[in-house]
Amino acid sequence: MKNFTQDNVTEAILDRISSSKDPRFREVMTSLVTHLHAFARDVDLREGEWFEGIKFLTETGQKCDDVRQEFILLSDTLGLSMLVVGLNHPKPTGATEPTVFGQFFRDGAPDIKNGDSIVRGDGGKGEVTLMRGRVTGPDGKPIAGALLDIWQTAPNGLYETQDENQADYNFRGRLRSDKDGYYAFVTMKPVSYSIPTDGPVGRMLKAMNRHSMRPAHVHFVVSHPGFEPVTTHVFASGDEYLDSDAVFGVRSSLVADFKPCSDEALAKKYGLKTPFLLAEYDFGLALSQKQRAAE
Amino acid sequence: MKNFTQDNVTEAILDRISSSKDPRFREVMTSLVTHLHAFARDVDLREGEWFEGIKFLTETGQKCDDVRQEFILLSDTLGLSMLVVGLNHPKPTGATEPTVFGQFFRDGAPDIKNGDSIVRGDGGKGEVTLMRGRVTGPDGKPIAGALLDIWQTAPNGLYETQDENQADYNFRGRLRSDKDGYYAFVTMKPVSYSIPTDGPVGRMLKAMNRHSMRPAHVHFVVSHPGFEPVTTHVFASGDEYLDSDAVFGVRSSLVADFKPCSDEALAKKYGLKTPFLLAEYDFGLALSQKQRAAE
Repeated sequence: MKNFTQDNVTEAILDRISSSKDPRFREVMTSLVTHLHAFARDVDLREGEWFEGIKFLTETGQKCDDVRQEFILLSDTLGLSMLVVGLNHPKPTGATEPTVFGQFFRDGAPDIKNGDSIVRGDGGKGEVTLMRGRVTGPDGKPIAGALLDIWQTAPNGLYETQDENQADYNFRGRLRSDKDGYYAFVTMKPVSYSIPTDGPVGRMLKAMNRHSMRPAHVHFVVSHPGFEPVTTHVFASGDEYLDSDAVFGVRSSLVADFKPCSDEALAKKYGLKTPFLLAEYDFGLALSQKQRAAE
Repeated sequence: MKNFTQDNVTEAILDRISSSKDPRFREVMTSLVTHLHAFARDVDLREGEWFEGIKFLTETGQKCDDVRQEFILLSDTLGLSMLVVGLNHPKPTGATEPTVFGQFFRDGAPDIKNGDSIVRGDGGKGEVTLMRGRVTGPDGKPIAGALLDIWQTAPNGLYETQDENQADYNFRGRLRSDKDGYYAFVTMKPVSYSIPTDGPVGRMLKAMNRHSMRPAHVHFVVSHPGFEPVTTHVFASGDEYLDSDAVFGVRSSLVADFKPCSDEALAKKYGLKTPFLLAEYDFGLALSQKQRAAE
């Protein structure tokens, strides 16, 4: 019979994984288990530490619900999410760089007209902002009808799903670029905020002596048939956390100025009072793989 | 400002971990994150695969409750638990080898007299067994008053916490060895059984084309002040799963014969009818580290 020991158990589990039917699953699990065992050996993992790990992972799973995803937060704060983004999206020329998806996206945001506001009800005390720009393809030509799915926190630093005092879908909206690829919407300037720290990830950050802040940003998923969709943020320049984002999401190409603007014509067009803030950011989409293959 | 990419994010997270106050935490997390990122790079992890992993871990945490520990099951089935057991307990001469703790231990098992039964109420249809042996120290001298905490499944393959038809603490008990180190208790022969497969770990085993069976065994934690406690099993010889234990817990030194016995004197002493099964297993304890240091 078998005599499983620390000297042969890695070989034994890898041998069993080798029976997997799906070759990619086999490849991924072989690498995962090889690294998992190598980690335990490298640090000579103590039983008490192993059990702390079991409890941490259990609590992380149990902290998840409809509006909270603590495992994504863990992946984000360990830099894994940003690594996976990078591995999956080598930047094509002219395309907007992607960043982490985060855990606060909510499906089914209301469709708004190009130029409308994503603030529902009382937006809270913040700086009214007009955000606008253009969506173009790799050839620089405008993409008409590109879908922009947009979400951000209220000026209190909370997403509406975290804050029962906010209206449903506050600071969320979907709009389409116009025939010349232009988009615009009214919002309030995003603020830097803390990721949730009342769970296991918060304890981990504390033990690492790290802060939990993210620099101010607006989330976007920009998509159009025939192009690679891009999941990204636009960050506000000057934010004190741009250098130390808790989830490593900052890319220098994704930073925009939020500048005071007193253009009365623009104010009138979007129903604003001067001065307001104007943030301009252009998105570039790459052709989809299918489209590239066809050309 | 920072521009986080797949090329610098690993360096960035390791730099942040370096601020950890506790040096051991820093060491463990540095190794863990290094391996986690290396895994993602090695397999060029796809976003969809990453998200499958997030969902798998979330579900694993949410499957845990007072009587179910799916993360321990995951660790067990990936061979990690047995690796950690091996790393933590290099075998001292003469001591019983440890194996996995499992997820079915329950604190507070009833104290029984040496020689009594751990079956409470109806034990179900099984083979009545007398299990006995001796607990000795590294010098071969008996250890009187050693505590044996014992648990196993009923003959239906279920622990009482998994089976509402079983009496509370059925097939669980604690007893102490006598003045000459001998112990004995009445039970039923353990059976091979499937670990729970109605959760994420069950799906993983299926994808690996592996069975979920464990060979028949009785769990023991044997302890006495001044000695290293040992967490182990005694396996039944001849079991068809001894070579392929789903959790890699088998050690050849932990296998005992369950032999038919017609000794009328023995039967009378323990209130049994002949023939019954007799299983004999001796436990050896090593001196505690403190005790070894003192000697």
